[in-house]
Order: sequence, then C-alpha cells, then structure tokens
Amino acid sequence: MSRSPFEEDILSRVRPTPEEVEHLRTISDRIIAYLMECHRRPSMVVGSVARGTFVRGDRDLDIFMLFPPDLPRDDLAREGIGLGRAVVDYFGGTAVEKYAEHPYLNARIFDLDIDLVPCYHVVSAREIQSAVDRTPFHTRYIIPRIAGFVDDALLMKQFTKAGGVYGSDHMTEGFSGYLCELLVLYYGGFNQLISKAACWRPGMVIDLENHMQRSFSEPLVVVDPTDPNRNVAAALSLDQMCAFIELARAYESEPSDAFFTIHSPVSFTRSQVRLALAERGTSLYTISFPTPPYVPDTIVPQLRKSMEAIRELLERMGFSVNRNDCWMGEDRSVILFELFNDTVPPVVRHIGPPVTNGDNAGRFIRKYVEKNPLSGPFIENGRYIVEIRRSYTEAVALLSSTILLDGSLGKHVRKAMAEHGWEVARDADCWNEDLSVFLASFFERSSPAVRIMRMGGE
Amino acid sequence: MSRSPFEEDILSRVRPTPEEVEHLRTISDRIIAYLMECHRRPSMVVGSVARGTFVRGDRDLDIFMLFPPDLPRDDLAREGIGLGRAVVDYFGGTAVEKYAEHPYLNARIFDLDIDLVPCYHVVSAREIQSAVDRTPFHTRYIIPRIAGFVDDALLMKQFTKAGGVYGSDHMTEGFSGYLCELLVLYYGGFNQLISKAACWRPGMVIDLENHMQRSFSEPLVVVDPTDPNRNVAAALSLDQMCAFIELARAYESEPSDAFFTIHSPVSFTRSQVRLALAERGTSLYTISFPTPPYVPDTIVPQLRKSMEAIRELLERMGFSVNRNDCWMGEDRSVILFELFNDTVPPVVRHIGPPVTNGDNAGRFIRKYVEKNPLSGPFIENGRYIVEIRRSYTEAVALLSSTILLDGSLGKHVRKAMAEHGWEVARDADCWNEDLSVFLASFFERSSPAVRIMRMGGE
Repeated sequence: MSRSPFEEDILSRVRPTPEEVEHLRTISDRIIAYLMECHRRPSMVVGSVARGTFVRGDRDLDIFMLFPPDLPRDDLAREGIGLGRAVVDYFGGTAVEKYAEHPYLNARIFDLDIDLVPCYHVVSAREIQSAVDRTPFHTRYIIPRIAGFVDDALLMKQFTKAGGVYGSDHMTEGFSGYLCELLVLYYGGFNQLISKAACWRPGMVIDLENHMQRSFSEPLVVVDPTDPNRNVAAALSLDQMCAFIELARAYESEPSDAFFTIHSPVSFTRSQVRLALAERGTSLYTISFPTPPYVPDTIVPQLRKSMEAIRELLERMGFSVNRNDCWMGEDRSVILFELFNDTVPPVVRHIGPPVTNGDNAGRFIRKYVEKNPLSGPFIENGRYIVEIRRSYTEAVALLSSTILLDGSLGKHVRKAMAEHGWEVARDADCWNEDLSVFLASFFERSSPAVRIMRMGGE
Repeated sequence: MSRSPFEEDILSRVRPTPEEVEHLRTISDRIIAYLMECHRRPSMVVGSVARGTFVRGDRDLDIFMLFPPDLPRDDLAREGIGLGRAVVDYFGGTAVEKYAEHPYLNARIFDLDIDLVPCYHVVSAREIQSAVDRTPFHTRYIIPRIAGFVDDALLMKQFTKAGGVYGSDHMTEGFSGYLCELLVLYYGGFNQLISKAACWRPGMVIDLENHMQRSFSEPLVVVDPTDPNRNVAAALSLDQMCAFIELARAYESEPSDAFFTIHSPVSFTRSQVRLALAERGTSLYTISFPTPPYVPDTIVPQLRKSMEAIRELLERMGFSVNRNDCWMGEDRSVILFELFNDTVPPVVRHIGPPVTNGDNAGRFIRKYVEKNPLSGPFIENGRYIVEIRRSYTEAVALLSSTILLDGSLGKHVRKAMAEHGWEVARDADCWNEDLSVFLASFFERSSPAVRIMRMGGE
C-alpha cells in the first residue's frame, strides 16, 4: 500500500530533525564516554532513540549501565544510583531517584529527560534477572530489522499517541514503542497493520519468531522475539485493544489528518462540573489523600484496586455507582465515584436462613423478634427475610467512615489513608485546578474514534 | 400422643354444637328432599359438613346436584343454575351466580351460606369431567376413615386457620379442609402430624394409597387417594408450606393456646401509613382499577402476574422495588409497590454491541454521535456504552403511562385497565378504608410463628 499525501505530510512533521538527532547523539556519546573513561563502566543507549524511531520533540534518552551478572542486586542498585549521580554531578543537572523493579535515576541534563538505569549485562535473554535486563536485547533485535520501516513506525507511534493508546504504563494500558515497532515489522508497514487490526479479535496471537512456549491470557499476545515466555502486549488492556481496533477501522474507512493530531486536553471549570451534574442528575464524590511515595506503575494499580473495593462497599450499602475513575497527582491522589443515588432509605432487607433449616431458623427468629425490626421476620421463597435499619443512609457518611479501611485496598493506599486520613468532597466541590482535565475527560468520556468523528463534525 | 388439657379446651370451643349440627342437617335434608321430589334430581351434601369435620360457626353448606355424565356441559350449567334458582325461590333467600370451572350458585338461605353446584354423577373418579365431579369421591373416601380422628381434624383446621394457612384459594395458597383431613389420617392424629411436619422439607411426598403414577413439581405432594394423577396439595405455595413447618416447630417446642386463637385483623389508619413510611424512608404507590367480573381464583393469579410485569418494568426503568402485593376488592382491585427510590436521575447507561462486531459497532456509533448523548459512546469491557437521557425520571409518571399495558398483564386485568383507566396514588394517599387491613398486614408483615411469639410477649 502506498503512502497517501497527507501521511507524507504527517511524516514531515513527526520525523526528528537532523539537529535533534545530532543533539541527542552528542549528549549520549558524551555520557557513555564519561562512564567508560572515568568509571570503567560500559553503557548503551536503548529505546526509540537508539532505534531511530522516536518522534520529533521526544527528548527522552535511556542509558543503560551494564554490570556483571554476579554482582548482588543490592550492590547493583547502590552502584547504579551512585554512577547516575556522578553523571548528573559531572554534566550538571537535577535528578530524582525512582523505583521500578529496582531503583534508577531520572535526570534532567541540558534540556533532556534522561533515565540512567543499572542492569545486568547477560549474554542471552534467557539469563535476565529483571525486566530491565531485557531492554538491550529489544534494541539489538529491532535495529537491524527496522531499516525500511522507520517511517511506518513513526506513523504508528503518532497514530497511537493521537488516539490515546500509546504507552504501556498502568494508567494508559496501551501500546509500548517496542510493541508498535514489532507490529509494523510483522505486518510489513503501517497501512498493512491498520488494515489487519481493523479485524482483530481479543485472543489474537502474533509470534514473529514462531517460538511461543506457553499460552497467555491477555487479549492481545505478541510473543517477544527475544523471550518466548514473554508477551510484549501484556500491559495492553482489552478496552485499549478495542480502542485501537476502532481507530484502525475508522481510519481505514475514512483516513484523515485528524487521526494523527494531538490536541491539548480539554479541561472543565468548576461551573462546568456543576452544569454537567445538573444535566445528568447524579452526584459526584471524591476521596483524596496524599500520594504514596512510589512510581505510578506501583500506585495506579493500587488506586484501581482500592476504587473497586470502595465501589463494592457503596453498592453493597445501597448506593448505586454509575462510573468511577482514579487520578494520581504529584501530591494527592483521588478516587472518584458518580452515584445514581447518594441517599438510601433507612430500611434494608436482610436475608436469613431457609425456614427448613431448623436450628439456624430458630436462632434467626429469636434474635430478630426481640430487635424490633421495621418488618418481619417473614418468609419469602422459603427463606426468612427481615427488614432492618441501615447503618448508613448517606454516601458522604459512608465514604467518611473508617469502614473503608476494612476493604481490600491497595497496601500503600491503605497506609496513606490510615496515616493521613482522607478528604471527601461532593459535586462541584470535587473540582480543583489539578483535576480540571481529569474531570473533563470523565464527563466527556468517549472512545477515540468518536472523539475524532466529533472533531471532524465541528 | 395424648391430648393436652388446653387442646381439650380448644376442642370444647371449636366442636360444632349439637344445635348447629341439627340445624345444618335439617336444612340440607329439606333441600335434598325438595330437589328429589319436585325435580327428580339426586343431590348430596359434600364438604366438611358431610364429613362432620367443620368447626363451630362455619355455616357453609355444599350441596352437589348430580347429573348424568352424557348431558352436554352447556346443558349441565344451564339446568344446574336453573335448579339452584328454584331452590332459592322455594326456600326464600338470595343468590349470586359464580364461575369456577363451570357456573354454580352461591345462595344465602336462612342464615346459611350454601353453594348449589351441578356436577356429573360418574361411577369412578377416573371418569370425572371437571374438578367438581371429584368432590363427592373425597367425601365418600373420608367419611368411613375419619371416625376416630374428627377431633384431630378440628384441631388441625383451627391451627391452620389461626396460623393463616387455611384455604386452598389463590389468595391464601394454603391447606384445604380435605388436605387437613388426609394429613391427620396419614400421621394418625394432630400431634403426630405436627411432630413430623416440623421436619418437612420441600419435595415431601405423601401417598396414602401407594398409587402415585406420575411425578409432581409442587413443594408438598399429597397424592389424592381417589385419583393418582392429582396432588391434593397442588395449591399450597412453598412459603405457606414453610409457614406451616415453622408453626409446627414453634408449637412443638412451646405449645400454647395462642396457636389456635384467631385474632381480628389489625388495620392501619391513614396516619399510621404515613408514620410507617416516614420510619422506612420508602415511597408507596398503588394502582387501582375496577375489579374484573370474575371469581377471585381467576383474578388473583392475574393480579399477581400483572404485578410481576409492572415490577419488572419499574426495575428496568431504575426504580428499585422493595416489596409488592395485591388486593382484590368487590369493586376495585389494587396493585401496590414499595419503592426504595421513586425518582431516578436523567442519565442512564445504554449498552451497545462489542467493539469487534464491526457492522453493529459502526451503526451504533453513527447513531449516537449525532444524538448528542450525555457521554459516550465509550468502550467498557470490550463493548460500547452510551449515557443517554431517560424517558421517565419519576415513578408516578411511569405508573401513569400506557406503557404499562405493553407488559404481560393478566388478560382481564389488562382489559379493565385499558377500558376504565387506573388511578395512581402515592404514600399516605394510597390509604382508604377498604385497604386498612391490607396495608397493616403489608407493613407489619411477619411469619405466623413470629406473630404468635410477639403476641405472647405483649
């Protein structure tokens, strides 16, 4: 399939400039030289910069420092962070220590965002000790193969970015750069990939090296060419896979520039929140607390788990949840619920044992005859039912109660909530500047193709 | 098991007086003689009066007029009703024509309630043409066997009456007199029956003549000794069977007079209804319409069916029903719903096709992109979801709408509602004098043993 004129046009905008490439190369060469000459530490550039598949303006540099595999993990971490700090001191810049599977240094040197990551220098992907050790193998696999497909990879990355499905972090649950590249390689080009993806189904398996050794449960399986036991698309959620299918279908039937255009996100003012709630007739509740001091990939799944636990509690207590979402900020994190009803009547039915279960039935009756329930015990479908008074008739009281901590919250989330408490806000009071984009996307939620169709219609 | 002193005491109150027996015999003899002498029509007394097992004050006389089996049904009905009217004219009284499986005359002669029922005089229960033809066989089966158990049968009837489980009509769904007698015969006495019934389980089968020929699906099966294909307990609902099990268990563990005491029913005033609703925090709705001109056993199941259909509609439209009930009066019938919420927010989620179903997904998206929904379409668990505006946000609007007639209502109920319309009342306005007992039993609903335990505690 030949490239259309506007795809060429997109490419002329997303291809990195020669100056950019030169700048990145100069900086990375200097850091690698410094590490080798002053610290006798071999290192390599990995990621899209190394593979030449980064889009213009992506100033992320990943430098992996290679350590012998027999070095204990604690030493690897300590020495790696130490070396990273030495780089920052030498070149001048700022740095933040971060933790993925093990610690690394996220530095800002000149105008670049540079991850300085210690890893083990193993000879085969089978010997890796942690996920980061695998990255150099990916780089080595892609570089010789991507040659005729760099433009296709750039289109795919820009397409997924504009569609909101780029990124394998836990918040996005989308396509990593490496996954984009493998798909382009597998299908032999961007347009070929789009045409096939329009017909994907969950359960799809792609195995470039035909070396799969086990089955995978994720909706899309792309067996890592460097490791038969790993699914490169493991982070891709069903819904993000579907979003990509939808985008591919929409693009195939009516290709346009809009599929590559990244818009600055919409944000809602406080009164837009008030207006949206008035139109919907629902109530909005947020609980917020200090963000636990860990990377998003640790905290986001915990926020989601906590959100599900609290949602179940709300539903069990009679508050009907339409939708929920969560947001992790630098300082505070937020779990949000939209409720169809935020009060419930005092009466609640409590289901007792079958009447024919003599012992339990007797205990149940004796207990509730004395308790002065609102009605019952009476018999319904062979069981006892009693109508009693609820503990919580208002959502705000339930969400403010420490009963929340009894649910299966994420570990660090529970700790933050237990130690610092949490704030419950309601309706327009949920709004603050930090949440203006999050709230807009909550109320204006739509699939990527729908968003693009709407923009076309405007 | 020997009879306890208070059981003897109960018996002295429920045994018919000699005057009563004499009076019933005199009247029935005169009617039977009149039918034979003036119309050459053989007839017989059936029911508990014939079997000597009626409780004091039960002034119901069932006289069955026997016609040859080759008479066409229409003639049987016409001649039967004509003969009945002749009886009423001759003795003086009033009469109402009623329809069960076929027409009969319900007469008031002297101070007795007399059913004058035409039936076919068949020689074996296998040849019966309708349910009423079976009744004479029941009478002939019981009379020779009940001799030593008349007092037990009286205790059983009084026990089930006081417990609210006596009567095989569709409203009660309880124990018929014939069923009470068969159970007493089977277990060899009232106390023996109570002791076994305390351990009954649904699925229980009793077959006095060991001649069952097919399986039955009802919770209690008592094979008719006069017809192996009939379950005498077919009308008994699971919940009324459970109520009897509960009563038996409670009586066995703490026998008392209270289990035989019939209290006049509690009734609620308008302000008691208001108070109960305030305490429960729920809303009450009734729809009422003219009672269709048929016997309760025809209309009550239709009211229940209609109630279920409307309940499903309410739930589907977002109104959460706690309980419902129905009531059939002489003039008007009522279906009642207690709602946890009687308003719902305008927003409702509408679930679309799976994203991977290309054709449907495309149609769905195109439809809703133009429709300006509140949110979406967006993707959730692989399907499209769109949040749109509800048609009905208030229960009163839904219950007043002709959309009710689209549900699977009972035939005569639908006709009455379509022809005469229906009234919707809310909360305390649901109350009227006719419903004062019905509403009290709705709010003070409890199983019979619980009611008796509470009375004991007062």
